[in-house]
Amino acid sequence: MTRAAREGLGVGVIGAGIMGADHAKTVHRKLSGAVLTAVTDVDARRARAVADATGAAVPADGFALIEDPAVDAIVIASHDSTHAELTLAAIRAGKPVLCEKPLAPTVSESAAVVAAERDAVGDGIPLVSVGFMRRFDPGYVQLKAALRAGRVGPAVVVHGYSRGVSAGPGATSESSVTGSAIHEFDCVPWLLDSPITEVSWQAGRQSSEVDPVLRDPQVLLLRTADGVLTTVEVFLNARYGYDVRCDVVGEHGTLALTEPAVLVVDSARTHGYDYAADWRPRFAEAYRVQLQEWVDSIAAGAVSPLASAQDGLTATVVAQAMITSMHDGGRWVSVPPEAG
Amino acid sequence: MTRAAREGLGVGVIGAGIMGADHAKTVHRKLSGAVLTAVTDVDARRARAVADATGAAVPADGFALIEDPAVDAIVIASHDSTHAELTLAAIRAGKPVLCEKPLAPTVSESAAVVAAERDAVGDGIPLVSVGFMRRFDPGYVQLKAALRAGRVGPAVVVHGYSRGVSAGPGATSESSVTGSAIHEFDCVPWLLDSPITEVSWQAGRQSSEVDPVLRDPQVLLLRTADGVLTTVEVFLNARYGYDVRCDVVGEHGTLALTEPAVLVVDSARTHGYDYAADWRPRFAEAYRVQLQEWVDSIAAGAVSPLASAQDGLTATVVAQAMITSMHDGGRWVSVPPEAG
Amino acid sequence: MTRAAREGLGVGVIGAGIMGADHAKTVHRKLSGAVLTAVTDVDARRARAVADATGAAVPADGFALIEDPAVDAIVIASHDSTHAELTLAAIRAGKPVLCEKPLAPTVSESAAVVAAERDAVGDGIPLVSVGFMRRFDPGYVQLKAALRAGRVGPAVVVHGYSRGVSAGPGATSESSVTGSAIHEFDCVPWLLDSPITEVSWQAGRQSSEVDPVLRDPQVLLLRTADGVLTTVEVFLNARYGYDVRCDVVGEHGTLALTEPAVLVVDSARTHGYDYAADWRPRFAEAYRVQLQEWVDSIAAGAVSPLASAQDGLTATVVAQAMITSMHDGGRWVSVPPEAG
Amino acid sequence: MTRAAREGLGVGVIGAGIMGADHAKTVHRKLSGAVLTAVTDVDARRARAVADATGAAVPADGFALIEDPAVDAIVIASHDSTHAELTLAAIRAGKPVLCEKPLAPTVSESAAVVAAERDAVGDGIPLVSVGFMRRFDPGYVQLKAALRAGRVGPAVVVHGYSRGVSAGPGATSESSVTGSAIHEFDCVPWLLDSPITEVSWQAGRQSSEVDPVLRDPQVLLLRTADGVLTTVEVFLNARYGYDVRCDVVGEHGTLALTEPAVLVVDSARTHGYDYAADWRPRFAEAYRVQLQEWVDSIAAGAVSPLASAQDGLTATVVAQAMITSMHDGGRWVSVPPEAG
Repeated sequence: MTRAAREGLGVGVIGAGIMGADHAKTVHRKLSGAVLTAVTDVDARRARAVADATGAAVPADGFALIEDPAVDAIVIASHDSTHAELTLAAIRAGKPVLCEKPLAPTVSESAAVVAAERDAVGDGIPLVSVGFMRRFDPGYVQLKAALRAGRVGPAVVVHGYSRGVSAGPGATSESSVTGSAIHEFDCVPWLLDSPITEVSWQAGRQSSEVDPVLRDPQVLLLRTADGVLTTVEVFLNARYGYDVRCDVVGEHGTLALTEPAVLVVDSARTHGYDYAADWRPRFAEAYRVQLQEWVDSIAAGAVSPLASAQDGLTATVVAQAMITSMHDGGRWVSVPPEAG
Repeated sequence: MTRAAREGLGVGVIGAGIMGADHAKTVHRKLSGAVLTAVTDVDARRARAVADATGAAVPADGFALIEDPAVDAIVIASHDSTHAELTLAAIRAGKPVLCEKPLAPTVSESAAVVAAERDAVGDGIPLVSVGFMRRFDPGYVQLKAALRAGRVGPAVVVHGYSRGVSAGPGATSESSVTGSAIHEFDCVPWLLDSPITEVSWQAGRQSSEVDPVLRDPQVLLLRTADGVLTTVEVFLNARYGYDVRCDVVGEHGTLALTEPAVLVVDSARTHGYDYAADWRPRFAEAYRVQLQEWVDSIAAGAVSPLASAQDGLTATVVAQAMITSMHDGGRWVSVPPEAG
Repeated sequence: MTRAAREGLGVGVIGAGIMGADHAKTVHRKLSGAVLTAVTDVDARRARAVADATGAAVPADGFALIEDPAVDAIVIASHDSTHAELTLAAIRAGKPVLCEKPLAPTVSESAAVVAAERDAVGDGIPLVSVGFMRRFDPGYVQLKAALRAGRVGPAVVVHGYSRGVSAGPGATSESSVTGSAIHEFDCVPWLLDSPITEVSWQAGRQSSEVDPVLRDPQVLLLRTADGVLTTVEVFLNARYGYDVRCDVVGEHGTLALTEPAVLVVDSARTHGYDYAADWRPRFAEAYRVQLQEWVDSIAAGAVSPLASAQDGLTATVVAQAMITSMHDGGRWVSVPPEAG
Repeated sequence: MTRAAREGLGVGVIGAGIMGADHAKTVHRKLSGAVLTAVTDVDARRARAVADATGAAVPADGFALIEDPAVDAIVIASHDSTHAELTLAAIRAGKPVLCEKPLAPTVSESAAVVAAERDAVGDGIPLVSVGFMRRFDPGYVQLKAALRAGRVGPAVVVHGYSRGVSAGPGATSESSVTGSAIHEFDCVPWLLDSPITEVSWQAGRQSSEVDPVLRDPQVLLLRTADGVLTTVEVFLNARYGYDVRCDVVGEHGTLALTEPAVLVVDSARTHGYDYAADWRPRFAEAYRVQLQEWVDSIAAGAVSPLASAQDGLTATVVAQAMITSMHDGGRWVSVPPEAG
């Protein structure tokens, strides 16, 4: 091995908001074999701030970044509405791309990405990965391993809980499904090794603190091909903290993620631990490992172990079926088989 | 006060199975102001065993026990199918009666008890109490108090989990609802101060270890008049232990029952606590307090703070609606308003 | 059995402070086979308040209560300084007596009680029990049972933690040992079935919020005859809550008491449970069971399963040795063998 | 920034046992800005195995590795007895070195390293860091931050627990102090910002499963200059799992590390989580962050934020005092002031 061979992959990050800035920092400071070479944002100051801290260049826009010769691979963390067109550009450039979830807000855009990638690489190494980072979270990884190892027998019911402090601006009942619950639509089939076949949408009592354009909380029901029923509570304005959990009930036991707190405090008549205000501390390790695995697979010329474009499409198809149920009284809606 | 005045209420227990023997022991050993004076069972040996340990008499059968002058108040813990006729006999005898849940397996029998009591006492002190003991469990009591105190804001979603090691002999999909889930049908409205208005029945994946005559686990959905959605997982053959929990999600926090373990063990690469094999340790305190409160209310000539006959009827009406949903593809079924 | 035979033991309670009023309420409302017949206190109003709520008589003082024919058995919960003389009076009256810990603050007084009882009853049923209620706490009972059952192998180290919100008025370094730590001096030998043979006193850093007449916290070291080393942290002004714990480390595992919380709250970025402000909720069940066992043993003419006068003396002897160590630089001090 | 500037620091690892192989893997796969260029071990096959998996070279021995021009910085993870001479060689070569704890088993060797470094660099950037990785463990970091933030007031007592499954071969009472407890001798002063001034050694009951040449468990008492008393239980053969904890008791609350489990299992009548068999999973993140911080400081030409040679010497001086106490009946032994 010479040092040159280890020089590292040049990574460009599109989007320097909370998520993009976090990815840029991880690439710059925590990855082996990668160098942050470029960053862009619609808000030039945000891109500039990241660049100043890392030495990365600031191309004119995402498309310029994709074409930049110093960029070997691209991370897309810009607005959801831009995901598809940027991913398509990366495919055209023949460069590996990690697109934050969702691959696209609509089924048709997601399908277009899948088709474009197929046309571009055929049976070769795929170019597109999707950032369903729970697949790399130590908790979810242990959960799946324990399930596969038979520690509780075959799964019969799954309960998911996805709560945040407050919804982002502009959140609607539908975006709660396509933007937040979509993690579950990828995670549950991955966990159970079985695709989602039908879904049903149910409303909790509306929180009086939330504008009714966003039904919050929602309770989602998922049926996978293996017959397992999953309940998912999504509550974007849960106020008390960022709290994502998953319980798998098996035929002779249960598996449950714990909040990975490391410090317990006794104070003022209470015993307990703190919640974070957003998802970054909870999933910091998942994001780091996901990026490292992605970089390593590119360096090795291997297939990415991340979620694929097809996985991204499938999750979007499930989301679409869920919204159909939402708009039709909560009835069970079948997921089109082409989703899998 | 003279000692005579404190001599104590003579209590007779009908049924000396697991539950009845437990009640008899509690009356005999743990209550203030009560004396166990009689016990019966269809299996005379079981009644005899309890009598030998306590000094209680063994009348010929439940009806004889009800008529026994040494019996001031009656606990019914015999087979569910006998509850209504024995309760009616107690009403006729004008004696207070605590009937184990369910008041009766059918709506018509339950309604008959409510009508008979009304005819017997009018606006006077009711005679019938129903053994929904969760209302006296320290956990549920604290849960309700914390909810009322506004610690998490108004409830928006409730999650109940009711798991046992193995179903009793003869259990069916329907008896899982009328015999086990019925606790939730009483508990949730009591907790929320709002009646159940509609229900929907959903199947988990069937445990391969369970005869299909019993769908196990089941996931039940309850809507209360306040709009709150409750999910209840009932899994009679969960194998790993007896485990009953309840989470209330409010507008700015959650309340959750914990397994009330008092000892934690580190051993053989694991850290944790033990589950009991059945409900008695979990609800021992609830049963004791419920019986004490019942005895105290009788001694004071006051209205019983336990669930009433109407509460028993209401829970049975909800159970009936749930079974209708079960037999009709899981659709939402309205609970008849007369239930409340 | 006739009802008369179950009429119940007449119990008188001396002292109507926090502890005494709690005992009186338990006797009145929660015990089988006992009737609260009398209560006294140096503060007549406190005694009156208890009497009004229960129908008990109010004799002139503790000695009059002991002589009262309606009093079959006596609970002493008055000031520590009165314990010995009242217990001696009960012995003279030939009546069973449950004296709150400590049996007496001094070794000589405790020894006098032991001697008086021996003279009074010889080989007969002892009259004196001492209120070391941890022996009846479900947690400590399970801890001892698990240890005996060999779940973690033989004990090698024990850690005790005894924290309260704030010390009572007049607390001193010495009274922290004789009044609070004394629970550990009874509990540890009971747990290990091995007497304490030597002790050493160590100071924590003095809390700046505590008057130096009370060294707080203290760390006490106990060696039992079996070689086990016990560390006990006593912190009377721990502020955050009433928190008593015990960890037993065995040769291949550990056993630990948990705070027996039944409700967990998520709120305002935290997850946890509440502490009580004093010992009553934590040990309510222990006090109830202890009193019931005491009453039952008297009714049965059997030896009391509670701590004996000798146990009370032994704990006081250990406390004396600990104070000797405190006054002598923390050196290891042997416990005189006559203590056991 | 050019890519060349980011080419990365060449790191050589001396020792390819459990710890060294783990460090090598971390350097190779998880660090930003570092390349594993060389590895050695007294057992050539172990070095070869690491080299084959990473592309690193295998110099003849540790001294050759230190001189290798492809090695910019050195990690020493060979036998404790070799630490001092290898660290001295690295100082002579003018290269940054991260030496696993202990810096050396003896005070004199440790002092020689401190002196050599002082002679070599004067007021310049020090060359030597010591691998007290707890300083980078997320739990300890949060613990210290919470303490400094005043969440529980000033510390009054600290309790440490350091338990492993089984001691390594050749472990003695003394090596338990110099090799294991030494983590506490660095960690406690770091946590409290106050040096250890005196120590006392106490024996638990000897585990019957352990050869008496190793007293196991031991209970160590530490007094820091601020007056805080620390108790540390060290139990190398605790059997049940690898379990390191720390509780800090403050004037109005406590802070406690939790076992950072992410998965909870209900199975076979128990609820709980698993322990690892050794320290690697527990401290994997601490090791990664420590190495990254070390690499970053070297790249930046800044002072290493890791423990210094002086910190390594200080811990060894405390260990020496503890062994003196062990050999002298457990009396309190002062730590020579030159340690700090």
